[in-house]
Formats: sequence, structure tokens, C-alpha cells
Amino acid sequence: MVKLKGFQKLTLTDQALQTWFSALQLGKPKVVVVNLQEALGRVLAEDLFAHEDLPRFDKSAMDGYAVKSADLVGASQGKPAVLQLTQADQVDAKQAKQVWTGNPIPKGADVVVMLENTQKRGGVLEVWSQLAPWTNVSKSGEDVKKGDLAVKAGTRLSPYHLGLAAALGYTQLKVAEKPKIAIIATGNEIAEVGTERLSNQIYDSNKTMVAAMCHELGAQTTDLGIAKDNTDEIAEKIQSALKTHDVVITTGGTSVGGLDLVPDAVNKLGKPGVIVHGVALRPAMPTAVAMLEGKPVLILSGNPVAAVIGFEVFGRPLISKLLGMSKEEPRQIVKAVLARRVASALGRKTYVRVRVSLKNGELFAEPVSAKGSGAISTMTQSNGYLIVPENREGVSEGETVIVQMFGGLEVANDV
Amino acid sequence: MVKLKGFQKLTLTDQALQTWFSALQLGKPKVVVVNLQEALGRVLAEDLFAHEDLPRFDKSAMDGYAVKSADLVGASQGKPAVLQLTQADQVDAKQAKQVWTGNPIPKGADVVVMLENTQKRGGVLEVWSQLAPWTNVSKSGEDVKKGDLAVKAGTRLSPYHLGLAAALGYTQLKVAEKPKIAIIATGNEIAEVGTERLSNQIYDSNKTMVAAMCHELGAQTTDLGIAKDNTDEIAEKIQSALKTHDVVITTGGTSVGGLDLVPDAVNKLGKPGVIVHGVALRPAMPTAVAMLEGKPVLILSGNPVAAVIGFEVFGRPLISKLLGMSKEEPRQIVKAVLARRVASALGRKTYVRVRVSLKNGELFAEPVSAKGSGAISTMTQSNGYLIVPENREGVSEGETVIVQMFGGLEVANDV
Repeated sequence: MVKLKGFQKLTLTDQALQTWFSALQLGKPKVVVVNLQEALGRVLAEDLFAHEDLPRFDKSAMDGYAVKSADLVGASQGKPAVLQLTQADQVDAKQAKQVWTGNPIPKGADVVVMLENTQKRGGVLEVWSQLAPWTNVSKSGEDVKKGDLAVKAGTRLSPYHLGLAAALGYTQLKVAEKPKIAIIATGNEIAEVGTERLSNQIYDSNKTMVAAMCHELGAQTTDLGIAKDNTDEIAEKIQSALKTHDVVITTGGTSVGGLDLVPDAVNKLGKPGVIVHGVALRPAMPTAVAMLEGKPVLILSGNPVAAVIGFEVFGRPLISKLLGMSKEEPRQIVKAVLARRVASALGRKTYVRVRVSLKNGELFAEPVSAKGSGAISTMTQSNGYLIVPENREGVSEGETVIVQMFGGLEVANDV
Repeated sequence: MVKLKGFQKLTLTDQALQTWFSALQLGKPKVVVVNLQEALGRVLAEDLFAHEDLPRFDKSAMDGYAVKSADLVGASQGKPAVLQLTQADQVDAKQAKQVWTGNPIPKGADVVVMLENTQKRGGVLEVWSQLAPWTNVSKSGEDVKKGDLAVKAGTRLSPYHLGLAAALGYTQLKVAEKPKIAIIATGNEIAEVGTERLSNQIYDSNKTMVAAMCHELGAQTTDLGIAKDNTDEIAEKIQSALKTHDVVITTGGTSVGGLDLVPDAVNKLGKPGVIVHGVALRPAMPTAVAMLEGKPVLILSGNPVAAVIGFEVFGRPLISKLLGMSKEEPRQIVKAVLARRVASALGRKTYVRVRVSLKNGELFAEPVSAKGSGAISTMTQSNGYLIVPENREGVSEGETVIVQMFGGLEVANDV
């Protein structure tokens, strides 16, 4: 616990996460069967085994001629091996059979000579090079052996996993069902984009961002609209959301020291309710995490950037868990030279938005000007987070730092 | 041009790409209008401007009290400023008005004191700290100014771009239409996954992988099945595909020195046909690039890994161009220490599959054992490419190398 200005208690970020997750009692995720073509980005729910060797027979890796390696001993351009061409299923001594890439290796042959290292002359084939046995042959089982684990349960499926599954004969895969996430915004000061606003209202952007971040991770979302700053209205929306969703995420109505409408509403609804409220995390201090009816509730700040970072810290690993992922899915990291000093407060984990760019082969991290946590443009202008730990007070210009990337690297024109 | 074993000519990779792209005459991509909620990952087709200041009024960034900063001069915990609470629309000297995060700042006030730095005592408010003007106030236009370019055309839309668009009042966005890509596999040796195979056939995995790689980049694909090793059949499929697609990608039927059924088929269909055939690129030497009816045709190797890398080198930047992206979309890169020497041939750009892992704060790149280019498991076991340039012959163990990441970083358990 860290003391805030005399009366507020903040929980350390890692401790908050741990406390929340230890209250989660997740079974295995529900499994759905999808066609291979629709499995990209889904998380495999069951180990995928090879039911046969891949490749299932020794096959040629080249266009050329299958021969016996023993017949090539001593062959060179000056003194080619001379072989008889055969059409038979079997290659005998001093014989060669034409094969194309992917063809099974005929019996008796143990090597494929590339076309460009041969020449047909009269009815015979001249081969210019000596080759070790099994050169240019993909041996059966070389890629994956029968019985081997090809893809582990809990893996997020890339194009290459799908390719491997296809090669092994799978047309469908068992994947984790997409977690169902309800998103509720709160606040009298916000209006739905596309509707009439009052003069003191702004458009809600948090539901749009939170939904998109969930979609990126493979969750499905329901937009449950905006609740007014009213504990009963908020509680009603959350209770109804819990009936048909796995997770509820709210934005707004939580602060450090001010209005705590959402935490209050959650606590009215049941036990354990709010588990941690107030995290030593900048700019997402008002974040709260809760459990209701055995389901996680994530209470994010109403400030857009604080909501994004609260989701980054608590929402991302939660969704990985719900999907049954075998390991965490860290952001890509890069080491970069910090281009300008950043400030941070001792005792707070601080997420600094930076723009990482490549200049003359070096990576530089430029802090994106420190506007308030309401400024969404700091997210669109940056591509990574420099995370300053609790035991540091700022980071100096010129220090090499680790940045977690959420966007593409900038490449300067001079590279 | 690089000479291959006396008779084959290979084109340098960058030159091949340049020659192909200079033959492309792309107009602006077709534009479609999508709802904000469906725009994630799409590419913005038109500059997005701010039609109003964001925020559109000075608003409170905290729960607290709006006051005049002049009234706080010299305030401290020992000697608080004492202010009268007001409900009026305006804050006069020595007055304070309660505000919640997001509320407009009342006239006359120029600062918000956080709740936790105040105390109500009797009917008055004690404030313990001095604050510079506009502290805890999000100034109107601080995020984006009216008339400013908020998101540039050609940007791939992240959750944060969508959030910014929502905040600016956009409910729909103009995005590039998904390029329509036809995928054709060729080869007598392959069968559709899920169908009966002959004893000398294997399942096709290339169409699955190429389609998924296209989908990752935001293209739509049509699976046009498998053409036998027959120039007419291949030509017919390509011709029919060109009628309704923007791009045709084939796999198989191309080699260096062997069967060139697909290049032959393409050249039968028209001019210019094949532009480059044979690239100084490992393991994707047989790749060919072509243009027919003003549309690009990408001819990939039949070997799965060579197909993947041919797509990586030629397909990825092509799709970025078709989407009208404002800049290339490079893979994330990391610097890592090479854990084992890799071999490469002088004069070839070589894509080495490596697994990058984080151990004790250091990144290491472990080459994934050099099986043939048919071994898809080398792709599923690796997470990045070490690209060895043409002027290098291998890279030594212990060298610091740049890796292009296509998968998540491995994090060793001891970190």
C-alpha cells in the first residue's frame, strides 16, 4: 500500500492484478468448432496432434533427378557421372528418374540432383556434382512426426499454425469461445456519438475504444449505452449485463477521493464486490477491480487515456486468461534511447506514451507531450509505452529504455 | 543480376520489387463507408479533420473545486485558503464551486483543486495548496484544435484512432475497400484438405496460409482451388480470376530451372506477363511477379515456407499499396544476440527463421533448425526473421542482429 496525500490508499499495480486474479475461479473456456479458414487469431482449445508423419513420404524438395548417392561419388563438371534415365518405379544402380518438387522419392534413390546440375546428352544424364545421401529430399516426418504435438492448446493461431493444421489434414479446429464482454459508460457529462449533445456534454469515446481493444484480443462486446451518474441506474445496468456476459467493463464514475458511483453500485449488488479501488498507476489511479456472481468487473476511469491504460494493465491479461491462453501475450518490446527526460512519481507505476522511431539504424523513444489523461491524441501520436517502475523518479534523457509497442515503428526517411 | 550456377539469372530482391511496383498503375483505392464500430484495422481513405475543438470547452480533469488561482497564493496545510462555496454559474473572488471530472469550468475560475487537497469545515472550504493557473483543467482544443488534421488518410485504424473519431463526433468513416485477392494452388501432388488423397499426394497448406496472411492485412480472398500441372488449366483459372479480383496469387508450378507452368501460363495470357522470374532470395528463389490486364499477379513457390517468405517480401507491401497506406507497415523489429551461427550464400538475401526470447533482460535469437523450405513447423516454432543481406556470407554466433518479429516474444520463466 502506498499513501496518497495523507488519506487515500493506493494498491500497487501488480498486487492489484494478483488479488483480482486470485479471486477468479475460471474453468476451461467454452469450446467452439470453427472451420480452418475462420480460425485466424482464435485461441486453440485442445492440443493438436499429428495423426501421421509430415511429410508422409520421402519427397523431393527440388525439380531434378532422383538417383543413388553412391553413383555420384567423385562426380564433377570435368568428370560427370553418367546415368541411364528410367521411367520405372524404382531406381537401380547407374539410373536416374526425373522428379518434380513434391514427388515421392522412387525406391532405391536416396538423393535428388537439381536440374541445373545436370545435362541430358543423347539418351543419358550427366551429373556434375557429388551429393551426401538425402540431399534435396524432405524425409518423411521431417516436419512433424506422427504422434507429435503440433500446436499446443492455448496458442493464438497464426497463418502458419493454420497451414500446419491443413498439412496435417485438419479442416476444423476447436477454439475457445470469444468471451462476452458488456461495456457500460457512465456520466452525465457524456452523450452517445451521433446523438444531440447538451452544451455541457461531450461525445463518449471510451466505449468505442474499449470495444475495439476487446475485439483486437478476440473477445465479443455488447454496447450497453450510457448510465447517468446515479448509483441505482448503474447497478441495474451491471446486474442485467451479468446475466448474459462473462465480464462487465465500465468507464467513469470512479475517482480517487471524489465520486465513486460505480464502485458503490457494484458493492450494492453483492459480494465480494470491489476488491481493489485505487491503484498506484499513472494515469489510471481511479481504476477498480471487482467480482460479482463469480464474474470479473473492471471499473475504468472516465478519462480516455486512463481508461486505455487501465484496460492495458487489467483487461488484456484478463482476456488472455478467459481465452485459456497457455501464456501471457506480452506486447512486442524494443530497446530505445529516450529522447527527452520524463517525469514520474515515486511509488507509482507510470505509463508514458512515447513515439519510437528508427533513425540511422538507432531506435529513439520520444515522449509524446504530457497533456492530461483526457487527450486521446497522445495515444494516436504514440506507438509504445515506456513503463517507469515504482522505484524510479523519472527517467533521464539518453537512457536506454524498454518500450512496449502497441503501434508500428516510425521509420525516418533517411534510413 | 546474380549468376546462378552458370545458367540461371536471379534478380536482386529489392530490384524485383521495384520493377514490379513501377509497372503497377494504381489509382486511389475504392472507398467504402463503414460504421465506426466496424472500422478497426481498416485503412482510412480520407483525411479526418476536427470540426470543433476537442475538448470543446475548458473542463475539469479532476473531481474537486473550481476556484481562482489568485485566491490560493501562499496556501498550505498550515495556512489554508478559506473559500465560500457557491452554486452559481460563476466563481467570484474567494469562492469555490464543486466540479466533477468532465464538467465545464465555471466562468471566473481558472484552476481545479483536487478534493483530497481540500476540507469542508462549517460552511467554508479550506484549500491546502497553491496551484498554477489552469492546473487540473483540460483546456478547450488541448487535445485537437478545430480544423486540425486528426487522422491522416492511409492510416490503419487502431482502437485509439476510433476513439478520437468518436470524440470528434464521427459515427462512420471512409475506408479503403478490402482488396479482392484470388488464390490458386497448382500441382498434381497436392489435394484439398478434407478430400481423398492419392498415395503420392499431400494436403495443400499454401492456400490456407496465403489467405490468412491476406486477411491479417485486411484483404479479402477467394479460394479458387487447385489447378493440375497443366498450362491451359492454370491459364484458364487465372484468366477467370482476373475478371473479378484485384490480384491473383498462385502457389507452385514455378522453379529455378525446372517446371515453369505458371509463368508460362501467365505469359500466354498477355503482356507484360511475367516481369521477374527467379529472385536472389532464400528460400523463395522461384518467386515470380507479373502483370496482366493491369493487375498484379504474384507467383509463389509451392514449398510452404518459400511461399510464406515470397508473400512476406512481395505480397505484404503490395497489399499496403492497394490499401492506399500512407507509408509502409514494417514488422516490429528487435535487436537480439544471435545464439548460433547461421549460414547464408553470398549474393542472396536470406530469411532465417529465428525464435527470439527474453532471458534475464537480454534478447536472444535462436535459429530454428534449418530444415527444408517445406517444413511449416519452422514457421510455427519461430517468431521472427533474421534477414541476412546479399553482401554477407553467414552471421556469427554472438553478433547483435536485427530481427523482424511476426510472432510474440518468448519470455523465459526466470524473468
